[in-house]
Amino acid sequence: MFGRLLPREVSFFDHFEKHARITLEGARALVALFADGTKGRPLEPLARRIKDLEHEADLVTHQCMEALHRTFITPIEREDIHQLISRMDDVMDFIEAASERALIYELTVMRPDAGVLAGIVLESVSHMCGAIEGLRDMKHARVVIDKCIEINRCENEGDAALRRALARLFKEEKDPIAVIKWKEIFDYLEEAMDRCEDVANVLEGVVLEHA
Amino acid sequence: MFGRLLPREVSFFDHFEKHARITLEGARALVALFADGTKGRPLEPLARRIKDLEHEADLVTHQCMEALHRTFITPIEREDIHQLISRMDDVMDFIEAASERALIYELTVMRPDAGVLAGIVLESVSHMCGAIEGLRDMKHARVVIDKCIEINRCENEGDAALRRALARLFKEEKDPIAVIKWKEIFDYLEEAMDRCEDVANVLEGVVLEHA
Amino acid sequence: MFGRLLPREVSFFDHFEKHARITLEGARALVALFADGTKGRPLEPLARRIKDLEHEADLVTHQCMEALHRTFITPIEREDIHQLISRMDDVMDFIEAASERALIYELTVMRPDAGVLAGIVLESVSHMCGAIEGLRDMKHARVVIDKCIEINRCENEGDAALRRALARLFKEEKDPIAVIKWKEIFDYLEEAMDRCEDVANVLEGVVLEHA
Repeated sequence: MFGRLLPREVSFFDHFEKHARITLEGARALVALFADGTKGRPLEPLARRIKDLEHEADLVTHQCMEALHRTFITPIEREDIHQLISRMDDVMDFIEAASERALIYELTVMRPDAGVLAGIVLESVSHMCGAIEGLRDMKHARVVIDKCIEINRCENEGDAALRRALARLFKEEKDPIAVIKWKEIFDYLEEAMDRCEDVANVLEGVVLEHA
Repeated sequence: MFGRLLPREVSFFDHFEKHARITLEGARALVALFADGTKGRPLEPLARRIKDLEHEADLVTHQCMEALHRTFITPIEREDIHQLISRMDDVMDFIEAASERALIYELTVMRPDAGVLAGIVLESVSHMCGAIEGLRDMKHARVVIDKCIEINRCENEGDAALRRALARLFKEEKDPIAVIKWKEIFDYLEEAMDRCEDVANVLEGVVLEHA
Repeated sequence: MFGRLLPREVSFFDHFEKHARITLEGARALVALFADGTKGRPLEPLARRIKDLEHEADLVTHQCMEALHRTFITPIEREDIHQLISRMDDVMDFIEAASERALIYELTVMRPDAGVLAGIVLESVSHMCGAIEGLRDMKHARVVIDKCIEINRCENEGDAALRRALARLFKEEKDPIAVIKWKEIFDYLEEAMDRCEDVANVLEGVVLEHA
């Protein structure tokens, strides 16, 4: 709908979709990274890949912001565009932070809970991609809302998974330094899920305003 | 004043007040939880109660947001409504986070400083309730401002209490795992106070704009 | 330019510059604090000085906010003024947090990496000052943008420095309690850099809107 009315503005949706696809690739690499770690493979190649993707996503964010400042009439509210791309960028930042910490802390034995949490991040990001794609045409408002509900469900699931992960970590791990390392990684994975929920909140607002 | 001019919009104040009352009940339960812990009683019943209250508060936040998206003319600025209910929800979230961590970490011996900090959170939330109630009628602008000043005073007091709590924790507690657990709980209690201050900042802005 | 068109509004720039100068003094004291620690000197005098500067900066922030609520026509967008002074205040808050923790934790042996990170904070704040001074006259838009680019460069450098600092900390420090303390201080120093970048983002937005 917006696309037809304001053909020149379609680029904002392009930026959103490009960013979401990069983040999806990042989330997949994150799941692979924790799986590789479990198998004793070096983390570095995937951590480096995630770092590159984070830079790519930064660039898209920057281009989107510049387009926003140059554009007078926007397909959705300026503040929503700003919020949307900023919160999407936060998701990617926390994916990268989790991966980087795994590398810096030279983790050799992986906790399976990290894989579980990364899996929920991936699921969440995948729904985020779907919601973003639905945004382009307000005929798909229902799809956007449904995907946002899925993101919220993931976040609740992730909360429960984090609680279990922390309980196990403090029960099983007797080395305080290892506790510090894993706790930080779990926290970043949770933050990634929380930012997906922030994205969902912005999207719900946009859809409700245009309903 | 707003109520009389825009009778249909009174619901926003209802949402704010309902949310504030739920948070007040949560803060009371938090104080009780740390007191119960001191007496060796199980933390679970109160932690579960706080979890339920947090869900209730989430629901009110969601209803308020939906009302905001449906409403064209609002009694106070849209952005202020959004900020207010979001920051109020943060307060409840951190109360719940502190209580949940106490449960997950299976704390048996309570540090009295947790009780002190929870007490300041309760005091802060209680002033927040008063400020929110004053918001409905701009004749009470002075009450709102006075309560906001009290919230700021609580936050300063809380800062000093946190410093003492941390100094004592690092001096007395020799088990690093226990230090990690308590530090996180103290941090959440401080965050709850900080979010009360954020609420106060929004409220001061609203009152100044309508003065 | 703004000054000439709207002479009465010049005060916002005065608030920004005053705040920036206080923060610069704070950042210098922070560098001195970690250097003094290395030489075994007591941290308290400089920590107290930083605390006082943080209070001063708070006052300027408060005055700026009050002026914003009283002023109908502003030289730059209201939301930008609010964001700018808030993010600037965050920078000072994290400088103070780092200094306060160093004091509370009674650190006697300083890690050189803290000095390196504090040095990058100082460089960042110094560029922030330059950018803020350029804001007053849109003829200096290029200066503002150049300083913002420098802030971004500092943030990237700071990220790399933090990674090295964390890797060294976890490799060298065997006392988990010391790891907890230093990790928190490093985190606050990184947060200070991140907030400088937030300030830069607001400034770039302002300049682009007025270009």
